[in-house]
Amino acid sequence: MTATPAFDELCAYRRRIYRLEHLQALASWDRMTFMPPGGAQARAAAQGELAALLQDMAASPELTGLVARAQAEPLDPVGQAEVALARHELTRAAAVPEALARRRTELAGKAGEVWTIARAQNDWSLFARDLAPLLECVREIAERIGQALGCSPYDALLDGFDRGLTSSRVESLFAPLRDWLPPLIAQACAGQRGPLPMEGPFDPELQRGVCREAMQLFGFDFDRGRLDISAHPFSGGAPEDVRLTTQFREDQVLPALTAVIHETGHGRYQAGLPRERLGMAIGEACSAAMHEAQALCFERQTAPTRGFAARLSGLLEQAFGPQVGFAPDNLRATMTRVRPGPIRVEADELTYPAHVMLRVEIEQALFAGEIGVADIPAWWDERMLRLLGLDTRGDYSRGPLQDIHWSQGMFGYFPSYLLGAMIAAQLVQAFRRTRPGDQLQSEAGDLDGLPEWLAERVWRRGALLTTEALVIEATGAPLSDGALRRHLEWRYAA
Amino acid sequence: MTATPAFDELCAYRRRIYRLEHLQALASWDRMTFMPPGGAQARAAAQGELAALLQDMAASPELTGLVARAQAEPLDPVGQAEVALARHELTRAAAVPEALARRRTELAGKAGEVWTIARAQNDWSLFARDLAPLLECVREIAERIGQALGCSPYDALLDGFDRGLTSSRVESLFAPLRDWLPPLIAQACAGQRGPLPMEGPFDPELQRGVCREAMQLFGFDFDRGRLDISAHPFSGGAPEDVRLTTQFREDQVLPALTAVIHETGHGRYQAGLPRERLGMAIGEACSAAMHEAQALCFERQTAPTRGFAARLSGLLEQAFGPQVGFAPDNLRATMTRVRPGPIRVEADELTYPAHVMLRVEIEQALFAGEIGVADIPAWWDERMLRLLGLDTRGDYSRGPLQDIHWSQGMFGYFPSYLLGAMIAAQLVQAFRRTRPGDQLQSEAGDLDGLPEWLAERVWRRGALLTTEALVIEATGAPLSDGALRRHLEWRYAA
Repeated sequence: MTATPAFDELCAYRRRIYRLEHLQALASWDRMTFMPPGGAQARAAAQGELAALLQDMAASPELTGLVARAQAEPLDPVGQAEVALARHELTRAAAVPEALARRRTELAGKAGEVWTIARAQNDWSLFARDLAPLLECVREIAERIGQALGCSPYDALLDGFDRGLTSSRVESLFAPLRDWLPPLIAQACAGQRGPLPMEGPFDPELQRGVCREAMQLFGFDFDRGRLDISAHPFSGGAPEDVRLTTQFREDQVLPALTAVIHETGHGRYQAGLPRERLGMAIGEACSAAMHEAQALCFERQTAPTRGFAARLSGLLEQAFGPQVGFAPDNLRATMTRVRPGPIRVEADELTYPAHVMLRVEIEQALFAGEIGVADIPAWWDERMLRLLGLDTRGDYSRGPLQDIHWSQGMFGYFPSYLLGAMIAAQLVQAFRRTRPGDQLQSEAGDLDGLPEWLAERVWRRGALLTTEALVIEATGAPLSDGALRRHLEWRYAA
Repeated sequence: MTATPAFDELCAYRRRIYRLEHLQALASWDRMTFMPPGGAQARAAAQGELAALLQDMAASPELTGLVARAQAEPLDPVGQAEVALARHELTRAAAVPEALARRRTELAGKAGEVWTIARAQNDWSLFARDLAPLLECVREIAERIGQALGCSPYDALLDGFDRGLTSSRVESLFAPLRDWLPPLIAQACAGQRGPLPMEGPFDPELQRGVCREAMQLFGFDFDRGRLDISAHPFSGGAPEDVRLTTQFREDQVLPALTAVIHETGHGRYQAGLPRERLGMAIGEACSAAMHEAQALCFERQTAPTRGFAARLSGLLEQAFGPQVGFAPDNLRATMTRVRPGPIRVEADELTYPAHVMLRVEIEQALFAGEIGVADIPAWWDERMLRLLGLDTRGDYSRGPLQDIHWSQGMFGYFPSYLLGAMIAAQLVQAFRRTRPGDQLQSEAGDLDGLPEWLAERVWRRGALLTTEALVIEATGAPLSDGALRRHLEWRYAA
C-alpha cells in the first residue's frame, strides 16, 4: 500500500490514455504516408472512434474523482505539479459537452473539404459559408472553457496550446516588432545579392540519404524513429518512436533538407521528453511554442551558420558531386535570402513574423467580435500591404485560404510560430554564452553541443513549467523580442 | 424509432469494436514492417492497452444486455443470425475471467521470448519449462469456454477458429489420408525429375514489381491495399485497406512470388467480405480454414496450372530476361516438386498434410491429458518417421520448436491448414464444373473467373454460415477429403 493510492491510480489512468494516443498518432502518420486512398473512409471512422473514446476518458467522472482524491494526498512538489496539470486539462475537457465537441468535429470535417475546393477555385465566400458556423462553434467552446478557467474565449484557446498564455502577453511580445522589423526587412532586401541556383535534377533516393545524414548530425536516433515521405513534412509518432516526413522534388534539394532539419528539432524534443514521466501530464512537451522553438534552433539558428553550412555542403557534394551552388557561402545565402512573398510556409525568417502577426490580429478581432469572416480578406490585404508591401487583393488562394488551420477550427495556434522564433533565439544565445570564447554572434557558431544543452535545459523538463517559466530557468531572462532582434540584426544588418 | 432498437444498438456497439480493431491491425502491420526496433516496448504497451479495452468491450454487461434485448425483437433471418453469432462470441468472451486472460497474455509473452532462444539453441527442455504453465493456462481457459458451450476443452479451442468444429469431425476428415497419402507420396517421389534451377541474383525491387503484377492478375486492388516487406509474409490490415507482406531473397524468386500469391488469396477474401455488413459478426470471415482455403485456391490450385504458369513465366522473363529456368513447365515442376522434409512452411502440398496431422494428434493428446509437454518430441519423432520417413530425433529446432503457434498459446489452429487444403480443392472443382468444356482436371485450368466465383459463393457470405454449411452451399456437397485426393492424384499420379 503506498501513501498516495489515488495519485498512483491517476498516473495509471493517464498512462492508459498515453498508450491509446500512441495508436492514434501511428494511424495519423500512416494516413499521411502509406495509406492507400481507398482506405481513407474506414481510417477516418476508426480514428474518430478512438478520438471519441479518448475524449470520454479525458473528462470522465472516474478521472474527476481521482484528481480530487489525489489532491488531498501528501505529494512531493513533482506530484503536486502533476495533479495541478492533470486538473487543468480535466477542467478544459470537462467544460466542453460531448455534443458540442462532436459538432465541432463535424463542422471541421465539412469546412476542411470545402476549404480544399475553395482554395483551388480562389473563392473566399464559398469557404466563408462553412467557416462561419465552425467559428461560432469554436467560440462557444472557447467561451465555456474561458468561464471554467476565468479568462476570455481567445485566451482559452491560447491556453490550449500554451498553458497560461494570454492575448495581452502575446500583444506585448509582438508589438515591438512593428517598429524594428520593417526597416530591417528594407535594409536586408536593399543590400542583398541573389544566390546562385543549384543545378538538378536531384534523385529523391540520394536526397533521402543526405537528409538521413543531416538528421544524424543533429543526433536523431534511427533506432527509435524513421524518415518517410508525405505531401507536407511533419513530425509524428510517439516519443519512443518518432516518425518524421518530408517531400522530395527532383528540381530542388534545399527545401526537403531544411524541412527535415526543422522536423528533426521537433522529433528530438519529442524523443527527449523525460522517459520516466512519459504518460504523465508533466511528461508532455511544454507548449506548441516551445516545440516550434526546438525546430527553429536547428533549422534557422544552426543550419545557416558558417560551420554547419560547410557540413551540409559536404553532404550535398558527396551525394550529387561538386557544383558552385553547393559552396557553403552559397548555401547560407540561399537559406537566408530575404524575399517578401504572400506564402507563410515559404517565407524567410525575416518576413515570417509578419505572416504570424497579421493572422493573430485577425483571430483576436474575430474573437473580440470586431469583425466577421466576411471581413477577413480586407483585413488581410491591408496588413500584407502595410507589413510586407504586397498587394494581395483578390488572391484568396495565396491569401487567407493558404493555411489549413482555420478550416480545422484551429484558432489560437498561430502565435506559437513567432513565439517559437523568439524562444529559439533566446535559447541559442543563452547556450552560446556558456561556450568558451566569443561565440555569441550567430554566424560564428556551429552545433557544438547544442542538442545536449537543449536536452538538459528544455526537453527533459517536459511540461513541469510553463513556457515563460521554462524560458527564465533555461536562459536566465524573461521571454522578450530582444534575442530574436539581435539574431536577425547580426545576420541581416551586419 | 425503429422496430428493433436493441438490435440497432447492438450493431452500433459492434461497429465501435470493429473500428478500434482497425487500429490494432494497423499497429500489428507496422510492427512487422516499418517500426524501428527501439519502438517495440512502447508499441507492446499500446497494443496491450487496446487489447484489454477490446476484451472488456467483448464481455461487458452492456453487450450482454443488448444481446438479450435484441433476441426478443422481431428480426429477419439475417438479423437473427447476427444476434446468434454475437451471442456465441459473447459466451466465449464472458467465460474467461479478466485475470485469466491477462495471465495468458503474460505467459505467452514469456514463452514467446524463451521460444526464440530455445529454438536458436535447439533446447526443448528450456522451452518446455515455459510451455507447461502456458498450456495449463490455455487448458483452464478452454475448460471454461467448453463448459459454457457444452463441449470438450479442445473442441472449445477449435470453435474459436471455426465455429462448431469438433475434434471428432477433424478426425473423421483426416483419417482417410493416413491410408491414401503415404503411397501417393511414394509414387510421386519415385517418378519425379528435379526441376532446373533459376539463375539469380534477383533484384528485390524487380521481384517486388513481379509480385505486384501477379497480385493484379488475381485482382488485388492497390487502391485499397499495399504490398510491403516483413520477416515473414502475412496478410493484415482491414477489409477496406489490406496490407500484404512478403520477404525477398536475392538468390531466389519463386518463394516470394508464391508467398505473395498465397497472401493475395487471404487479402482478396478480406477485401471481399460483405461491405454492407462490415462491423457485424456475420460480416467477418467464416473461419480460419475458409481463409486458408482462399489462399490455397490461388497458390496451390491455380498458380501451378499450365495456363497460369505461362503467365508467371512471362512476368519473370520481362523482369529478369529469358532463361530456361523460367519456362512454364519448369515453373510448374518447381512449384509442385515433392520432397519430404522436416519444415512445415517449406513443405510441398503433398507432404504438407502430414505436418498438420502430427501436430493435431499431439494437441489432441495434450488436451486429453494423455501426454505432457515433455512427451512432445518423442511423439513428434515417431510420427515424422511413420508419415514422412524422416528421422528427426534430437533436431528440436526443426522439430517441435519450428512453429511459433504453441509459444503464443495458440492451440487448435493447425487443423485449419489441412481443412483449408480440402476446402480449396473442393471449391475449385465445383467452380470448374460450372465452366464450359472438360476443365475438371486441374492441369487444364487457368484463373478464368475463379476470383469472381469465390467472391460470390464465399467472400460475400461472410460468417453467415459455418464452414461446413458454406461448403455445402458453395459446392453442393459436404466437406470431405475426396476433392483434395482427386486434385493430388491428378497432379502427382497422372
